[in-house]
Amino acid sequence: MSDVLQQLNEEQLKEVKRQMAIYSQGVQEIIPADELEQKVAKSILENKPLKIKLGLDPSAPDVHLGHTVVLNKMRQFQENGHVIQLIIGDFTGKIGDPTGKSVARKQLTDAEVKHNAKTYFEQFAKVIDMEKVELHYNSKWLATLNFEDVIQLAGKITVARMLERDDFEDRIATGKPISLHEFFYPLMQGYDSVMLECDIELGGTDQHFNILMGRHYQEKFGKEKQVALLMPLLEGLDGVEKMSKSKKNYIGIDESPQEMYGKSMSIPDELMIKYFELVTDFTPEDIQSLKGKLATGELHPRDAKMLLGKTIVRMYHGEEAAEKAEQHFVSVFQQGSLPDEIPVVEWNGETEVSVIDLLVDLKLFSSKSEARRMIDNRGVKIDGNKVEDTRQQVSVSDGLIIQVGKRKFVKLKCD
Amino acid sequence: MSDVLQQLNEEQLKEVKRQMAIYSQGVQEIIPADELEQKVAKSILENKPLKIKLGLDPSAPDVHLGHTVVLNKMRQFQENGHVIQLIIGDFTGKIGDPTGKSVARKQLTDAEVKHNAKTYFEQFAKVIDMEKVELHYNSKWLATLNFEDVIQLAGKITVARMLERDDFEDRIATGKPISLHEFFYPLMQGYDSVMLECDIELGGTDQHFNILMGRHYQEKFGKEKQVALLMPLLEGLDGVEKMSKSKKNYIGIDESPQEMYGKSMSIPDELMIKYFELVTDFTPEDIQSLKGKLATGELHPRDAKMLLGKTIVRMYHGEEAAEKAEQHFVSVFQQGSLPDEIPVVEWNGETEVSVIDLLVDLKLFSSKSEARRMIDNRGVKIDGNKVEDTRQQVSVSDGLIIQVGKRKFVKLKCD
Repeated sequence: MSDVLQQLNEEQLKEVKRQMAIYSQGVQEIIPADELEQKVAKSILENKPLKIKLGLDPSAPDVHLGHTVVLNKMRQFQENGHVIQLIIGDFTGKIGDPTGKSVARKQLTDAEVKHNAKTYFEQFAKVIDMEKVELHYNSKWLATLNFEDVIQLAGKITVARMLERDDFEDRIATGKPISLHEFFYPLMQGYDSVMLECDIELGGTDQHFNILMGRHYQEKFGKEKQVALLMPLLEGLDGVEKMSKSKKNYIGIDESPQEMYGKSMSIPDELMIKYFELVTDFTPEDIQSLKGKLATGELHPRDAKMLLGKTIVRMYHGEEAAEKAEQHFVSVFQQGSLPDEIPVVEWNGETEVSVIDLLVDLKLFSSKSEARRMIDNRGVKIDGNKVEDTRQQVSVSDGLIIQVGKRKFVKLKCD
Repeated sequence: MSDVLQQLNEEQLKEVKRQMAIYSQGVQEIIPADELEQKVAKSILENKPLKIKLGLDPSAPDVHLGHTVVLNKMRQFQENGHVIQLIIGDFTGKIGDPTGKSVARKQLTDAEVKHNAKTYFEQFAKVIDMEKVELHYNSKWLATLNFEDVIQLAGKITVARMLERDDFEDRIATGKPISLHEFFYPLMQGYDSVMLECDIELGGTDQHFNILMGRHYQEKFGKEKQVALLMPLLEGLDGVEKMSKSKKNYIGIDESPQEMYGKSMSIPDELMIKYFELVTDFTPEDIQSLKGKLATGELHPRDAKMLLGKTIVRMYHGEEAAEKAEQHFVSVFQQGSLPDEIPVVEWNGETEVSVIDLLVDLKLFSSKSEARRMIDNRGVKIDGNKVEDTRQQVSVSDGLIIQVGKRKFVKLKCD
């Protein structure tokens, strides 16, 4: 590609610079950065949107904040007129795991794939404009390949290159088996980029190798190479592991305002700014200002975290829900002067239960009459609200706090 | 498999032993030997022939003595009522080399594959009974596989297992690239055995890995596993390298009796017995007797080698041609007292040429009249035979010896 920047006027150059600043924000790595600039410049010069690829595994449709790191970046491209190409990896999903060892990679039916994709879309719609998205199922081209085509594809990559992928390298080093078919997943991901002529592929840093496969295969097929835009991985609520459903350290974007807010408050202080950068709609200027106020002590870390919680709730449930979630948190957890440590009790019963049954089942009282007496004496609070009626029904949810008298607290844990 | 031997009567057991002695002769390795015995026993018990597989690469149809090592072994199975399955690897041949690097693996057309196969069969007919052979083209099943099938196949083998193949291991160790598609060749060879339910696969020791793939895949597909029967590699006329066309150290089974005989005489003495064992129809007893006579000095090594040459010619051209080739050799090379070193001259001209033109073109004479004079004086010999007529036509072939006068010799080299 010749230097497109030289063909732009001053205003256009300014626009390139503006977009580049947005796209670079919070990014871990752009491979290669100068090609991204050239692509943006070309799209401005020719008034042609760039194609931004995001591949999706149809087996795990629960979207959490970890996913929104990439989605937020896609939104930025979309807001600047570029086109999002969502690729549902249905071909992979339909194959399952030929070794039969991985339960996670079980064979999905067409109906399951469609259902999972729909679940994704409903959730994605909270971040990106799904009306403007280009949607693709990769079985469209992968299912038509025959053995000869596959051999031609495999002929364009070396075994050594495949073994450079970190997890493959580790498994070879530690003697853990790699099934040969696993080599095909990066190969397919690369071929998807050939078929859709993607300009940019987004992903977490753990997708480094797979996304570069797209560049490799596009070059082998004589296409313009895509740019890899790698986002940092978001640590979950534990502050250590990558946010994921299986680690139970996530905030799902479908969770209730109260859950979202409450979970946000448990994010470790040292990750707060990273969360602002990666999962909120704060601009670089907003974040700069926030950092300044925290440094000078003008803003207390607890208040900054409340702002984070409120922002996250606002993004997924709107302004009003965000206000309410904050008020709820303040009334229950701050004004109610809860103890620092509340014993956690597992709840495996019904999610709708009468308050009397709940209190007795939790062994807070040894009989229903005792429980009834305490309620009559206004001595029972649920999530900070006094129970007024012994016939009240309670909607049990994870984190629900029950207070009996002044000093007895339990927090429910539900799966 | 339970022990079939226990179900056999004494006569049948004797028959197993007889066949096993034949099949084991000259073999490098049987993997595993006890399974071969069980299979032979079962075939006798059930009166059902075993299926003996030989895979053929359709790109190199010139058959030489190196190939007959395996063919002779197949003949032994055929003579005992078993069925030879010849598999033409046309699927591989039609793919060529996807990296475009290997000239040897160029893409063959259907017509080329058929032509090459036919050339094989004509030559094989000299060793095995082609009427009784089962013929298969592996494109029949391989060309119908789609990407999903390929992934299922690849899921049944590990990368580590593939890298155990010696040449792959060496290339990884020395940093030479392995193109991913190369992993498919052993995989296809293994799958061929699944499709044809082969009992035994024959090959050279260099096929060790690929033939064991057949066992691996048969097991994965719930089939009875084939036995690998590996023959030693035959060194060529140089006594060092494996016999091959590219090394020009071969005796082709389509070569003329004189060429065959002459080339046989150039086999190093120390390989003579190996040749008797691997490329002649000598029985173990014949060879034992030969060894004894050589050891006692009753047989001179030169005479043993003449017997080898005569035997090879007899196998491919019949008794009469063998006698003639021997006589020719004796008259030209022994009685004619040829010098030890004869200058070799390249011949790129016509294969049918008048003797006068030949002599002048070879610059043995500076004019046709000089050449004519010498012939009239009976001073020119071709392959030991005096040229009687100046109008004589000569059939030029590799190794033809021309003698002018008493001391001037040239040997022709033709490609």
